[in-house]
This record gives sequence, structure tokens and C-alpha cells, in this order.
Amino acid sequence: MTTVGPRKLRIDLAYDGTDFAGWQFQPDHRTVQGVLEATLSKLQGGERVVVRGAGRTDSGAHATGQVADGVVTTELGDDDLGYALRRLLPPDLRPWRVRTTHDEFHAIWNAVSKTYRYRVDLSRHGDPFLARYALHHPYEFDREVVEAGLRRLPGCRDWSGFTSSSCTKVDRVRDLTEARVAEDGDHGLCFTFSGSGFLQYMVRNLVGTLLEIGRGRMEVERIDRILETGNRDLAGPTAAARGLCLSKVTYLDDEE
Amino acid sequence: MTTVGPRKLRIDLAYDGTDFAGWQFQPDHRTVQGVLEATLSKLQGGERVVVRGAGRTDSGAHATGQVADGVVTTELGDDDLGYALRRLLPPDLRPWRVRTTHDEFHAIWNAVSKTYRYRVDLSRHGDPFLARYALHHPYEFDREVVEAGLRRLPGCRDWSGFTSSSCTKVDRVRDLTEARVAEDGDHGLCFTFSGSGFLQYMVRNLVGTLLEIGRGRMEVERIDRILETGNRDLAGPTAAARGLCLSKVTYLDDEE
Repeated sequence: MTTVGPRKLRIDLAYDGTDFAGWQFQPDHRTVQGVLEATLSKLQGGERVVVRGAGRTDSGAHATGQVADGVVTTELGDDDLGYALRRLLPPDLRPWRVRTTHDEFHAIWNAVSKTYRYRVDLSRHGDPFLARYALHHPYEFDREVVEAGLRRLPGCRDWSGFTSSSCTKVDRVRDLTEARVAEDGDHGLCFTFSGSGFLQYMVRNLVGTLLEIGRGRMEVERIDRILETGNRDLAGPTAAARGLCLSKVTYLDDEE
Repeated sequence: MTTVGPRKLRIDLAYDGTDFAGWQFQPDHRTVQGVLEATLSKLQGGERVVVRGAGRTDSGAHATGQVADGVVTTELGDDDLGYALRRLLPPDLRPWRVRTTHDEFHAIWNAVSKTYRYRVDLSRHGDPFLARYALHHPYEFDREVVEAGLRRLPGCRDWSGFTSSSCTKVDRVRDLTEARVAEDGDHGLCFTFSGSGFLQYMVRNLVGTLLEIGRGRMEVERIDRILETGNRDLAGPTAAARGLCLSKVTYLDDEE
């Protein structure tokens, strides 16, 4: 398809966040938004492009299903534009779908659900192939008690106790629809959290707290107290960003 | 176990080879042997340690089952030495088993078989999480013809046509016992080669040739001609090191 004039583009992206200072543009830092905008701009003669991402992933966090939108003026059709982006973008930032969408599409507002995964490497030695993608946690892990903790989480509630102390959001009510853990490879675990939205550090604080519970350093009832009081000081440490991955963003009008 | 006096150590290692200039020690380069020797030496007051590796992996190639041996004089027992090594070695070089073995153990000579894997990412966009661990090959891939090529390979033969032009080995006869390909994840492939030994670049040249055949650029009979003539110029390009992984070294006296 060759089009003329501005059009709204939707880009589905995967990235290894290790060498990015997060999603959001920052001058003098390599960010996903910054690299994507600069590359799109290059493809239309330097004319500036602004993209929005469904999730503002943290520095070092990854994505397999990030969704970005932006208005472009290039005359390249979707296939050619996808090809050009694949040629120009670096190996750690890969657009796996590029297509024109309706003008009202908004990667953040139109999202009905997001899914994050968090990987943990429980091996004693530390798998070198997970060093960038999982938290190394060579400690006791009582899966039963962690699953009891996970069962306490789903619901539409205020998540103040699990956000960062610098969270600026006033409305901290989010609907968490899924919270589970599964085995991942020979010596790994993968947590999955889905919901209407997530506050800053929410997944990392949930995982940090659950790992403390699994290690016997906190009682599972601690979860209830954090949810009731909204007191961030009761929660565990913020788990490292490297284990976190934005795996899926769902839109009402998705074909799949 | 606490021991006194020199003892022969066997270390089973995994490493992400991306940031190493290969296995073999080189002054002024970060190599696996260099980092391992320096770390062991630090653990015994600076006294020099020389380690041998079962396979001298190329710069950028990986290992999940490399085996090293060396004589140490530290008084730390195996468990404590393993713990200390895990603490001191970097996240991309992980010793997953450390134990005292018999004095005659020789990581190279005692090996009866080695297995290498080679990963290929066939996705169009290139998976960012495979960028360090697989060759990106977004081209036609006729699996049937590649499997026909693989069936021609096993046997005890001279592999001159598949080694590097700078190979210094006089005896180039090796027994290849396994050559196969399997699916690997959503859009990947994994080749597996096992045998008594491998010449320099042998696996990478086999894969480079098989991918040319799978893409329709060479006939499958080319394999026979390379094997018959030993003519390196008939083979395909040397596939990138990043896809290669030394996955297992087998010893006669292995318990498993």
C-alpha cells in the first residue's frame, strides 16, 4: 500500500532492554522511544515523529509485545516501511509488525489489558544465558506459599502499597486479572501478571515481596496488610528490572 | 572436603561468549581461559594456575557444557572453592560444577565425544532475545533438503573441506556420529552435531553450507563433492560464531 499524507502507524515491538535507559525519551541517553523516533524521522527526510508506547518500560526491562503509535508522513507503504525499519533499527530493537491503523488509535488509552512477565533464575550457579533476562535468586523458594500469596492479589483495588514512593498518579486503582507463576526451563520460574494497567514498579514490587515470602522472610499475610494499608514500607524490595518483560498489550479491536 | 597439596580439578562451565575473545588465553584480551585462570590464581594467593578446556571455542561462541581441568594448590575444599568461584566470576562465565578428579584427568584427551549446537533465527524481523545466540537468517529454508544434506554427513572421514583454510591439524579424520536439525521456539532452528572431535570452524562451515543448500543456492550433492575432494572453496560461508554453543563433552568415566 502506498499512501500520501499523514497517517497513524501502529508498530508492534520487541526489545532487549539491557542497553536501553528505558522506553521514555531522554536527551543524551539511549532509549527505545528515542531510537525509534530518530529512525522514523530519518525515513521521512528528518521530519520529526513522536511515538507513544503502551507501557513506559523501566531502564533494563524488556518487551516482546510493546505497542507504539505515531503519525508519519512518509510515502512508503506499510510493507516497505517495515522493511526499512528492520534494516535501520539495531538488533536489540525489533519491529515485528508495522501497519497503518485508524486515526483515533491510541496505544495507551485504547489498551484494555497488559501482561507482564517476570523471570527468576533459581539455579545455584546462575545461568549465563539468563543473566540479562532474569533475576538470579539462588535462595529457598517455597512455591506453595508463593502461590498462596499470588491468590490474594487479583481484584480491582488500590495498589499504593506496591508502587514506587515517587509515583505521581493520584488514581491508584487498577484491576489485576491474573497473577500466577510457572516453571521456566530447567531451573527457572516465570511470573505472569495481567490487568487493566500497572503503576510504576508495581510488578517488580510484587515479585520482590513474593520472593521474600517464598524465602520465609515474610508471612504470606503480609500481602493483605500491604493491600489494606497501602503502606509501601511493608513490601519487599523492588526486584531488578532485568527480569521484567512487557509481553502483551490487548486492544478491543485486535483481530486475534 | 578439605585437602592439602596440589590436586586436579574438573570444572564444568557455561558461558555467554559474546563478550569474550574466545576460550584461549590472549594477553590484552578478555578470554574465558584468561578470566578463569586469573580467578583461580587469586584464590590461592596469586600462585599461577593453568587450565585446559575440552574445546577451544571461537570468539563469540558459547558453551553450556565446557569442561576445564587444572591443578590447584588451594586448601579450599570443592564446595567452598565452587562457592568462591561463583562469587568471583562474572555473570557471563558460570561454573556449574567444581570437583576434584583423578590426577590423570585430561579435559581434551579423555573426551570421547563432543556435542555442538548451532541456533538459527528464521524470523523476518529478528528476535532481539536471540541476537547474541543465533544467526539471523530471514531467507528461504527448505528443511527437507537440509535434512537430506545432514544425512550425508555422519561417518568417520577426512573433514578438510569443512575446516578453516588456516587449520594446522595434519590428521583431519574425525568420526561424526550425529547431525540433525530440530525446531527451536516459535521461529528458530537448532542444529546438533556430535562426534569424536571437530576441526576449526567445522561446525560453522557445515551450517554455512547447509543454509546455502536450504536456500536453493547449492545442490545437496555439493556435500558429497566437498567430502570427496576436501576442497574448502566448494563449501558455503563460515556461519557467524554467535550461533555456536559447545553443549556437551562426554567422558568414559562420567557417572551420568
